[in-house]
Amino acid sequence: MDETKILLPEKELPEAWYNIIPRLPSPPAPPLNPQTKEPVKPEDLEPIFPKALIEQEMSPEPWIEIPSEVRDIYKLWRPTPLHRARNLEKALGTPARIYFKNESVSPPGSHKPNTAVAQAYYNKKAGIKRLATETGAGQWGSALSFACKLFGLECTVYMVKVSFEQKPFRKSLMHIWGAEVFPSPTNRTQAGRKILEENPDSTGSLGIAISEAVEDAATHEDTNYALGSVLNHVLLHQTVIGLETQKQLALIGEKPDILIGCVGGGSNFAGFAFPFIGDIIEGKLEAEVIAVEPTSCPTLTKGIYTYDFGDTAGLTPLLLMHTLGHSFEPPAIHAGGLRYHGDAPLVCQLVKDGFIKPRAYPQNPCFEAALLFAQTEGIIPAPETSHAIKAAVDEALKCKETGEEKVIVFGFSGHGHFDLAAYDAYLEGKLQDYEYPEEKIKEALKSLAHFPKFPTGI
Amino acid sequence: MDETKILLPEKELPEAWYNIIPRLPSPPAPPLNPQTKEPVKPEDLEPIFPKALIEQEMSPEPWIEIPSEVRDIYKLWRPTPLHRARNLEKALGTPARIYFKNESVSPPGSHKPNTAVAQAYYNKKAGIKRLATETGAGQWGSALSFACKLFGLECTVYMVKVSFEQKPFRKSLMHIWGAEVFPSPTNRTQAGRKILEENPDSTGSLGIAISEAVEDAATHEDTNYALGSVLNHVLLHQTVIGLETQKQLALIGEKPDILIGCVGGGSNFAGFAFPFIGDIIEGKLEAEVIAVEPTSCPTLTKGIYTYDFGDTAGLTPLLLMHTLGHSFEPPAIHAGGLRYHGDAPLVCQLVKDGFIKPRAYPQNPCFEAALLFAQTEGIIPAPETSHAIKAAVDEALKCKETGEEKVIVFGFSGHGHFDLAAYDAYLEGKLQDYEYPEEKIKEALKSLAHFPKFPTGI
Repeated sequence: MDETKILLPEKELPEAWYNIIPRLPSPPAPPLNPQTKEPVKPEDLEPIFPKALIEQEMSPEPWIEIPSEVRDIYKLWRPTPLHRARNLEKALGTPARIYFKNESVSPPGSHKPNTAVAQAYYNKKAGIKRLATETGAGQWGSALSFACKLFGLECTVYMVKVSFEQKPFRKSLMHIWGAEVFPSPTNRTQAGRKILEENPDSTGSLGIAISEAVEDAATHEDTNYALGSVLNHVLLHQTVIGLETQKQLALIGEKPDILIGCVGGGSNFAGFAFPFIGDIIEGKLEAEVIAVEPTSCPTLTKGIYTYDFGDTAGLTPLLLMHTLGHSFEPPAIHAGGLRYHGDAPLVCQLVKDGFIKPRAYPQNPCFEAALLFAQTEGIIPAPETSHAIKAAVDEALKCKETGEEKVIVFGFSGHGHFDLAAYDAYLEGKLQDYEYPEEKIKEALKSLAHFPKFPTGI
Repeated sequence: MDETKILLPEKELPEAWYNIIPRLPSPPAPPLNPQTKEPVKPEDLEPIFPKALIEQEMSPEPWIEIPSEVRDIYKLWRPTPLHRARNLEKALGTPARIYFKNESVSPPGSHKPNTAVAQAYYNKKAGIKRLATETGAGQWGSALSFACKLFGLECTVYMVKVSFEQKPFRKSLMHIWGAEVFPSPTNRTQAGRKILEENPDSTGSLGIAISEAVEDAATHEDTNYALGSVLNHVLLHQTVIGLETQKQLALIGEKPDILIGCVGGGSNFAGFAFPFIGDIIEGKLEAEVIAVEPTSCPTLTKGIYTYDFGDTAGLTPLLLMHTLGHSFEPPAIHAGGLRYHGDAPLVCQLVKDGFIKPRAYPQNPCFEAALLFAQTEGIIPAPETSHAIKAAVDEALKCKETGEEKVIVFGFSGHGHFDLAAYDAYLEGKLQDYEYPEEKIKEALKSLAHFPKFPTGI
């Protein structure tokens, strides 16, 4: 088999999403109502989510059919290619075979539209007219704008003000796809006005933007909220990535030895890895699964496994996850999509149970790997994606030492076309590495002291 | 057949480029030495081009084999998909079937690497260590940087100073792919120093940058020059686009009625259209072929068919083409790649002989069409590409009136990820349309008075 790109015909586009929940060794812990500390009821979520998505959130079904309307939109760019990274292998002199699943070919340039399209569809079907969401660097906001435009929904994006001002081009994307974009904090919501009263010069945060978007959705009958990661239904929609990858590897008769993805909120990683992890749980596959995060935001490698808020402001249900504490403020590293204090509960549970090995890298070695990738395979990786590449390179170099011909497969979550300023900074030697200090974690965790302890007892 | 994307397996990647020269009704007019007015001899070109490319420039062979090393690099992104633009069709309510050949999936984001990779290969094989080139907006410079990096060649790019300062991100791409980039005019060449002596604040021009790159190549033994359009060998390398498109249309049993491409120097248009035009010449196909240019630089629609310099400074051989005069200074519209005073001689000959119908549009209606495209098909077009989309939309709307189910196929030459400032300007209503005034053409043509007249007598 000497193809460079393994393509799937459109008829091989998965017809159902892969639900990991019924395949887990133990059932996932429910999200809790922060007042009552009781499990959240489906009806608690109805002011901001359509029923179909609430059902998916805790569905026991192993497969959930992808509506044909969603598949039709997926076909604008899916199935995505699986590439054999021959030039990278040659440059490393490794006997390993390296493959990457290329999600950068979607119009917004990342994996994000896999769920954005599904969420827009179910909201449209439920009679919703508008979706509100938050965005940091803009990957998610642009993906949701794209999806809303295709289904004729309006879209309101609360974009963290510092990004709104410093990253003008993802805002341009959202405008091209017809969304309205506001620098958060705004005067449009109580949450925003409160922040601005206290600090008129606030440059915003993802936590504030979430609060604004949720409030907008909760206070408008025709408007719902959409989230780009963390929740189970979001991870579910992303599993088309891993399902396609499995078919592509089968086509060329390869079995993966090492699977790698980068982790922020966890949706890219889960979408790529869950179908494989399910096979591992069921004893059908032996492989190492590596989740890569930045040392500046080492949730899985240094966080504590406990209940915490999903947002900074403390408005969301409590989620059982690895967390650095919801008051955690990540330093301004460029891999914006990996700066989240927690992680998807399903990913965290699999880390706790030993099915996923987390690993953290500082950003300079990641950019070094990204540059090698761009100079051999051509495509310029997003800073988030560079973390997965760094791990793939390290594993390939280990194979060079041992002589093992391992099959390494990683998720290429997005391109870096709107992150070139970060590359400029790297090439000019201006990027700083950052290790998150232990004492800061201890301090942040104090804010969690009154939350229910998980049975494993931390 | 209900696929959205028509894919070709890698084994269907063309094994030879399509040479239109031996299929033309009359042989092309040779380039002339500007001093002697005699046809340029191959050896005149050897200081700046490798022999293999000089041979291709006037080859009588109908097919020219693509070296396996070049095909291997092409496979990083080729064959490119042919998309059926169903969502656009629906939005227009047209009975026409619209297809587009998507060259935006290459790592540099356009068709340019099809020739950049070939040129880097032949120069590498000839023992050359470095390529010098010019770039305006940066599409060509980034494609050549990418190609040089893959073949281990150094690359020096003279980038028009105003673009160097205003379009920082295509410069970032070139740096990522390891090129050195200088704002032209520079102090590195006699040509540059002369300009700077006369005007230290010069913001440069493509003409000046060409002069610098050619001088750099001519004065360094180990260095050659590379050009991104206009010349026959450049157009030849681009024919993989049209050859693949033919195979893809055959796969789904479609015959094109209308073929559309945008034209700057002509390489994108020629690469897409020449294999079809050859079939038209040979009586195997009946189709309308439309070349679209901006009204601000209406070379094919308003220029004169005569001998002229390829560059502004008057250093290159004289080429027989439609020209606005080499002293033509195009207004600063955003479709930078379409701002060239002349056009590829092969394209011009086919316009003169009636095989290609040229058409010009102002930029606002082109951006309007591009926005509709982005909001239906998802992908954000380059401003150059928007000209082809506008023509496709107009033809599809004609079909709506007549009820004809025509098959419209256009070349989608590149994405607009590095042109979002132009979209911002469009959305803010700040873009101006521009009709090139007739009296300016008359004036510019005075500079051509002493050139040999073409037999058709203008």
